[in-house]
Amino acid sequence: MTEETWDVVIVGAGLSGLSAAQTLRKRNGKLRILILEGKDRVGGRTVTQELPAAHGIDRWDMGGQWVGSTQTYVMDLIQEFGLEVYTQYTTGKKVHHVGGPHAKVRTSSTSIPALSTLVLLDLSQLVWKIDRLSSTVSVEDPMKTPNAQELDSMTLHSYIEKHAWTEEMKEEMGVCSRVVFGMEPNQMSFLYFIMYAAAAGGVLCLLESTPGSAQEFRVKGGTQQLSERLAQQIGRESVRLGQAVTAIWQDAERAKVMTATHSYLCRAVIVTCPPHLAAKIHYQPALPIQREHLTQNMPVGHMMKFVITYQMAFWREKGFSGEIVARPSAECPLSVTFDGTSPSGSAALVGFISGVQAYNWSSREDWALEEYSGGCPVNVMAPGMLTYYHPSLCMPCGRIHWAGTETATKWCGYMDGAIQSGQRAALEVLARLCPFTLTQEEQDAMQAAQNQNHDSGPCQHLPSTSHLRRALILTTLIMATAVLLAQPQLCRDWIGQARQVVLRRFALWQ
Amino acid sequence: MTEETWDVVIVGAGLSGLSAAQTLRKRNGKLRILILEGKDRVGGRTVTQELPAAHGIDRWDMGGQWVGSTQTYVMDLIQEFGLEVYTQYTTGKKVHHVGGPHAKVRTSSTSIPALSTLVLLDLSQLVWKIDRLSSTVSVEDPMKTPNAQELDSMTLHSYIEKHAWTEEMKEEMGVCSRVVFGMEPNQMSFLYFIMYAAAAGGVLCLLESTPGSAQEFRVKGGTQQLSERLAQQIGRESVRLGQAVTAIWQDAERAKVMTATHSYLCRAVIVTCPPHLAAKIHYQPALPIQREHLTQNMPVGHMMKFVITYQMAFWREKGFSGEIVARPSAECPLSVTFDGTSPSGSAALVGFISGVQAYNWSSREDWALEEYSGGCPVNVMAPGMLTYYHPSLCMPCGRIHWAGTETATKWCGYMDGAIQSGQRAALEVLARLCPFTLTQEEQDAMQAAQNQNHDSGPCQHLPSTSHLRRALILTTLIMATAVLLAQPQLCRDWIGQARQVVLRRFALWQ
Repeated sequence: MTEETWDVVIVGAGLSGLSAAQTLRKRNGKLRILILEGKDRVGGRTVTQELPAAHGIDRWDMGGQWVGSTQTYVMDLIQEFGLEVYTQYTTGKKVHHVGGPHAKVRTSSTSIPALSTLVLLDLSQLVWKIDRLSSTVSVEDPMKTPNAQELDSMTLHSYIEKHAWTEEMKEEMGVCSRVVFGMEPNQMSFLYFIMYAAAAGGVLCLLESTPGSAQEFRVKGGTQQLSERLAQQIGRESVRLGQAVTAIWQDAERAKVMTATHSYLCRAVIVTCPPHLAAKIHYQPALPIQREHLTQNMPVGHMMKFVITYQMAFWREKGFSGEIVARPSAECPLSVTFDGTSPSGSAALVGFISGVQAYNWSSREDWALEEYSGGCPVNVMAPGMLTYYHPSLCMPCGRIHWAGTETATKWCGYMDGAIQSGQRAALEVLARLCPFTLTQEEQDAMQAAQNQNHDSGPCQHLPSTSHLRRALILTTLIMATAVLLAQPQLCRDWIGQARQVVLRRFALWQ
Repeated sequence: MTEETWDVVIVGAGLSGLSAAQTLRKRNGKLRILILEGKDRVGGRTVTQELPAAHGIDRWDMGGQWVGSTQTYVMDLIQEFGLEVYTQYTTGKKVHHVGGPHAKVRTSSTSIPALSTLVLLDLSQLVWKIDRLSSTVSVEDPMKTPNAQELDSMTLHSYIEKHAWTEEMKEEMGVCSRVVFGMEPNQMSFLYFIMYAAAAGGVLCLLESTPGSAQEFRVKGGTQQLSERLAQQIGRESVRLGQAVTAIWQDAERAKVMTATHSYLCRAVIVTCPPHLAAKIHYQPALPIQREHLTQNMPVGHMMKFVITYQMAFWREKGFSGEIVARPSAECPLSVTFDGTSPSGSAALVGFISGVQAYNWSSREDWALEEYSGGCPVNVMAPGMLTYYHPSLCMPCGRIHWAGTETATKWCGYMDGAIQSGQRAALEVLARLCPFTLTQEEQDAMQAAQNQNHDSGPCQHLPSTSHLRRALILTTLIMATAVLLAQPQLCRDWIGQARQVVLRRFALWQ
């Protein structure tokens, strides 16, 4: 077994690991940095592939594909590499199929889904309640959230059961959970859900394609380019593919990172792989119990993505946006589709089969079957995990530092969060190895974070205008219903307009 | 790396693995069986140690210690090896300290804890409700339980919050969860909880020391003797200690089980280690996603056991049983103690620090720190796991068969369940390698189980008399309260007697 010596070894060549390496390299060009990756490619949960299309071969993202204007880390990186984004196509009618097994497939002109006023009201009140709670969450230290332990003691399912008025709305929330996490609402802590929403700026930001939301832009040429450019910048000789890390040992002097065939001595390690994979590495000395129990209980989602290419975007011509939202069933396993037409005009639809439905399809090629992914898009926390173990998610263990999008405090679970986490872990390592490369401000911030003081108080991602806006929506809807009930024949036009205003806010459900 | 060839390799030399080997050996003496164990001893989560006591050295169980008369698998084994059991000492007053941070420490004469009538009623109605639900559970296929998905979508905490009337009762249930599982009520699926209770014969069977309950007997000389005798019977040359399995590969012809230094070819493998440790083994080809996601989300408990030896059992002389039930606090980390005096008369108390409190003490020697245990007493399931993944807990993956107490259908989580699971896995292997050693009945049973038909319908562990008994208790208590409210001065004596009858049923709370 060969043995080499480096300054820093990074486990994982996804956006998180590569961003960590970039930050280390930028701050101190002398550091010898090695990235070990189990897969035979860089990019982690992003991968861009060629598919036959109407006008020859074109490229599509088979993993993470959307970015948004409030995702400053990933937008900065896109700009740094001179890449371009384009807006997700959402013009036209949407198809909506939710509301029990016997629900009709409904299409909506003027971009309004055929939801009853009651369900719209329910949607509005539920999102308003969740967002109000979400605005009280401290993402850095979720247990500072008012009533944190109670919120962490219930599943997302239990919350929905208690607070949604209609069965249709409960089903809608199931679709949301599947689309955002690849997971059923009963597998996740409710506090974790609202923390995740808070890290994105509110629950609607997770669901929408509007400015600032998660599905706002796509990257021309695909998102894997970001990792490829990063690897190029860092130097391909520093990135070793097909080198899955099996063990990390450490003592007072150094750490030793082992693969099946090699062993690497170093002064610091950054582990960036998803928590359930980090849990499979053998650590010596053993990690603290809190860390072990946490990573053993962060279920990873199950989401299968498909891209269908067409001769032409026939849906656009017929006035459809390409969006379908559906309750999964035996006949229709998908949860959602979007227009996936490439910037060069190759027509396509992109969609997801997710949550429990994905299991019926998992004999197909799948993220869950990729050994060094094991699922996608993200690991969440089961109930009770935030209450007892949250600090150990990021707390360094000796020479080992933790990154990966699950450890991010802004857009946790997204490419943006991966980059934030990599940069944060890099600063931790710099503070250990060469503190002179950090500003006093950075050193103080590191110290504060590592002291677990988390004095930051409730996080203020949601501007108060957002509250007002939602309160306004709720009021409008209540008024609309009141008018409708009072004068059913009179006000249809006015109500139609009001609904239109409201429903622009709920693009994903359309 | 040396390579050897065997018929069956068993991973883990606890009661489950050793029982599997015993069954294989009994049925077919020609099978070459090898047991690989990561620890330097046999016994898994049972270990018997010597401690200084009043009259010299004596032995105590530092792991699993109790058995009960309805635990037929372990009782048979005890009988086979000519070992003896003795009854847990419970005579005398109990100490009870539950009811909020300012609760008084109360002792009770005549074995009745100083609970208010309201809390007794609450206890009675809650246990009655849970037991009624528990009696509808199919342990073999929990998703056949009426309303299964809903019950699996909430935590035990959520159920208690909804159905307990008093804060004191909620706290009592927290103590129960800690004592039985080493876990907080918010970390566990409620359906899993009632399935676990059903596998033991009802929720009170988990908690009590009465005949048929979990804390009925102890084994003279300690429970680790069972594993030592089994290992002796099987042949010490077939048990290799300090050989942690790191990988299992298989193809159409054979399986290959690897440790750091050896590799063993065989025709079948039985993996008996706890699910979170089984998840750390590297499998090739990869296991089905369902299995991976399940074992990644079965949190293991955290329970620290302590034995304190004394010159004399002073509590007995003062009329105490040695039982303390306490809400954990900074001043009092323990959840429960029992009289632990040895059969030869060495006075001792045995107690547990468990659940979240154990973390504050985990710098001490601890099951959680033992690399090839990682926690105790048992792994449970987080919400949603039974709904989506339960069948993969036992379903063989090619040549790999699964055992361990977590896979048992009777006294799951106990020594008895470990033995049952080992014997069941052995029959599966025999059905594969030498079906002629099985009776037609056994073959049919195997076939039925492996077809996942589970036609067994709801399990009937709880005799209907038990239902009647509990209904009677409830009625008695309601009548008592009615009388108390109507004639507060009159009936104290009668109520005292009624309470005494009732409270014999709730020994653990006393």
